[in-house]
Amino acid sequence: MIAVFPGSFDPVTNGHLDVIRRAAALFDRVVVLIMKNTAKKGLFTVEERVKLLNQVVAEQKLHRVEISAATDRLTVDAVRSLGGQVIIRGVRNERDFSFERDIAELNRRLAPEIETLLLPTSPELAVISSSYVKEIAQFGGELSSLVASPVARALQERFD
Amino acid sequence: MIAVFPGSFDPVTNGHLDVIRRAAALFDRVVVLIMKNTAKKGLFTVEERVKLLNQVVAEQKLHRVEISAATDRLTVDAVRSLGGQVIIRGVRNERDFSFERDIAELNRRLAPEIETLLLPTSPELAVISSSYVKEIAQFGGELSSLVASPVARALQERFD
Amino acid sequence: MIAVFPGSFDPVTNGHLDVIRRAAALFDRVVVLIMKNTAKKGLFTVEERVKLLNQVVAEQKLHRVEISAATDRLTVDAVRSLGGQVIIRGVRNERDFSFERDIAELNRRLAPEIETLLLPTSPELAVISSSYVKEIAQFGGELSSLVASPVARALQERFD
Amino acid sequence: MIAVFPGSFDPVTNGHLDVIRRAAALFDRVVVLIMKNTAKKGLFTVEERVKLLNQVVAEQKLHRVEISAATDRLTVDAVRSLGGQVIIRGVRNERDFSFERDIAELNRRLAPEIETLLLPTSPELAVISSSYVKEIAQFGGELSSLVASPVARALQERFD
Amino acid sequence: MIAVFPGSFDPVTNGHLDVIRRAAALFDRVVVLIMKNTAKKGLFTVEERVKLLNQVVAEQKLHRVEISAATDRLTVDAVRSLGGQVIIRGVRNERDFSFERDIAELNRRLAPEIETLLLPTSPELAVISSSYVKEIAQFGGELSSLVASPVARALQERFD
Amino acid sequence: MIAVFPGSFDPVTNGHLDVIRRAAALFDRVVVLIMKNTAKKGLFTVEERVKLLNQVVAEQKLHRVEISAATDRLTVDAVRSLGGQVIIRGVRNERDFSFERDIAELNRRLAPEIETLLLPTSPELAVISSSYVKEIAQFGGELSSLVASPVARALQERFD
Repeated sequence: MIAVFPGSFDPVTNGHLDVIRRAAALFDRVVVLIMKNTAKKGLFTVEERVKLLNQVVAEQKLHRVEISAATDRLTVDAVRSLGGQVIIRGVRNERDFSFERDIAELNRRLAPEIETLLLPTSPELAVISSSYVKEIAQFGGELSSLVASPVARALQERFD
Repeated sequence: MIAVFPGSFDPVTNGHLDVIRRAAALFDRVVVLIMKNTAKKGLFTVEERVKLLNQVVAEQKLHRVEISAATDRLTVDAVRSLGGQVIIRGVRNERDFSFERDIAELNRRLAPEIETLLLPTSPELAVISSSYVKEIAQFGGELSSLVASPVARALQERFD
Repeated sequence: MIAVFPGSFDPVTNGHLDVIRRAAALFDRVVVLIMKNTAKKGLFTVEERVKLLNQVVAEQKLHRVEISAATDRLTVDAVRSLGGQVIIRGVRNERDFSFERDIAELNRRLAPEIETLLLPTSPELAVISSSYVKEIAQFGGELSSLVASPVARALQERFD
Repeated sequence: MIAVFPGSFDPVTNGHLDVIRRAAALFDRVVVLIMKNTAKKGLFTVEERVKLLNQVVAEQKLHRVEISAATDRLTVDAVRSLGGQVIIRGVRNERDFSFERDIAELNRRLAPEIETLLLPTSPELAVISSSYVKEIAQFGGELSSLVASPVARALQERFD
Repeated sequence: MIAVFPGSFDPVTNGHLDVIRRAAALFDRVVVLIMKNTAKKGLFTVEERVKLLNQVVAEQKLHRVEISAATDRLTVDAVRSLGGQVIIRGVRNERDFSFERDIAELNRRLAPEIETLLLPTSPELAVISSSYVKEIAQFGGELSSLVASPVARALQERFD
Repeated sequence: MIAVFPGSFDPVTNGHLDVIRRAAALFDRVVVLIMKNTAKKGLFTVEERVKLLNQVVAEQKLHRVEISAATDRLTVDAVRSLGGQVIIRGVRNERDFSFERDIAELNRRLAPEIETLLLPTSPELAVISSSYVKEIAQFGGELSSLVASPVARALQERFD
């Protein structure tokens, strides 16, 4: 069974990696699907995010994990074309849940054969977000407990 | 992979059945695990709930679904002894999520090898709860859209 | 148009009175419908609550307001037999809303012709609840900003 | 009694239409009041939104419903000049409620004679939002269960 | 300045101890005030809870911390008679906050000179509650990461 | 003990002033720390906000209160350089709490010696926000119950 983990990953954090690792223990294959957020400009391009995720997956020796990118299409269409039966999302708090439940329901109407599974984030990782990581990097703060080393390096270069 | 769906099921509702059906499409086997709620007396005994769930599973021809009951032990211990790697729970709203996230984290500390997956309930089923079903039955209301027919019959007999 | 305001009113608080007053400005008639909470024993009997509400309505010269009591039936059945087209409920906070939204949806399925309208409680009244009022009364605290005078007297007698 | 339903309606969805239809059953007249959101540029101009709403109201034969637009003034001032005694808003979830309760309280301070009534959205409509509709339209998804046909046509033209 | 930390402490958990320790770093004196919950029977009597808290405070060498018990009075009256200017409460999640905010406001009306300060619980402690601890103890689970050793011993004796 | 109250204060509202006043009653010194929000352009420059806050503090004779501004650094670094041991934040509702809890936890990891204390806002002030104040000012609404007089004047000049 193929599980797809869609998101912005701008950049991938230790919170995302926890979800990826846990999903990889449950499914035959996990595809991390980088979506372009049409509403806001990213810090990294989609291509840079793919490269970073591939570096992290290699460095951390994550098996059964692949990186993909979706351009200009609905999430469920991208999931379908990857052969995914399951969408995986991490949920940090009530705000996240409220949002994810609505997205899951909308996706269920568009593609009833695809199931959404929510993984509650471990509390020590639940405060980490991509935007927080970028803010810390911008002010030269310590990144090692927040992101993998290739991401830390890329952030430091970007804000140098 | 074996998924365990623990709960009170006093009685099983169409909301529970939706979770069971969706989980059965994802895992090799789904065990519905009836827990005795130590805090409050149920309407049905654990034995009656087992019987009702078996009737419903047979009537609705649900495959790969088994019914079990746990007595006087922690959920994770019961899941372990069933060979379960995954705990499944339906989540109807923010209140549910807030509760389930805490339970999932506590279970993760007791049994890190067991993963908890949350399924967001479909909105048309999200308002159904066992307590609501019992209240409707008590006042002689219509049960057919809320519970399977063996459960409706058992409720009518109980409140006759 | 007849609006029905169902609740326990054990006892009626200044928060409830604000809802009654605002509803009375919008509808031809407002029926305050005292429901017996099957789950817990009240401080006042349903008959005492009816009497208290009638005293308060008379004292505060609330027009177009009637008091009624429902025994052993579904809320929507009681509303129907009163000729009500609208159910009115005050909502103090997110917890209240989450609960009221589910009840409204369940009632809509049982009686699609009855509409539920939620009135957001004024913030200075939103912290008042019947249980808080009873706790204050139990410890001899000041009740004048929380309940009408007939209710204050009844509480003082009860906890004397 | 005149009820005013203020909002952006960029564009009007089936969720909005449910609120309009339910409000029209309760009040003598319902005015849908299109507010210009000063913070973000709309997909449709206020004039286009007025036109779309008029088409939908005509097509669906909604009686007692009028369309109006407010420019550069406070909501309560616009409601007053329309002779409205009631503001109507649909509430989909806890996030919505939290926001609407604050707006209602602020409006109450500016105009104590105007009452705000919240209608809990039916769960099957609660996931529909104008932004979601625009995203689906942008990727060529199916719009028929989300918006009325004049709106679907306008969206398809816009994203062609 | 004297800070009072009121609660049931049935029994005191590592979550409570974190709040006590952090408050003791900020104020001249911290009084842990054991309130009798009138609504439910405790596992430990108020006297046993006082004894356990004193043992824990001694064992962990917490300075500037005292234990007290309140019987049959409002929290603010107990705080006043202890000379407290500040009420301290730990807040684990949105549910807790919603409850604590209302209590704080009600206390402010009864005693405007007493300030309530909320300490957000560290996420790794936020899932621990007295009821969870009791459930774990009942089923013979591991208590060492949840409560101090005198509490663990008392729980084991109680459920033996 | 020095408490720091960081925020945007664009502009300072009566809600902020309530927090400042209550904090000043508890600590030796309260520093109001104006942070530049990197994400959005303010209505007032940081310098203008400093000036406004100083005028308000002088006018209202608030003792032990100082105004400071932070440029391009992490909040905890600014708090440290001010000698602050405590971060103070007002919390209006569940949304605020959810946000503040995460920020507090992230700050705790960066600076474990700094404590975050949350003050629940009084309900009558909880609906006031800087963005609401700006919207009211923009449409020429009444500002006297929302902000101090120097702020009201500055807003009127800005939107004239």
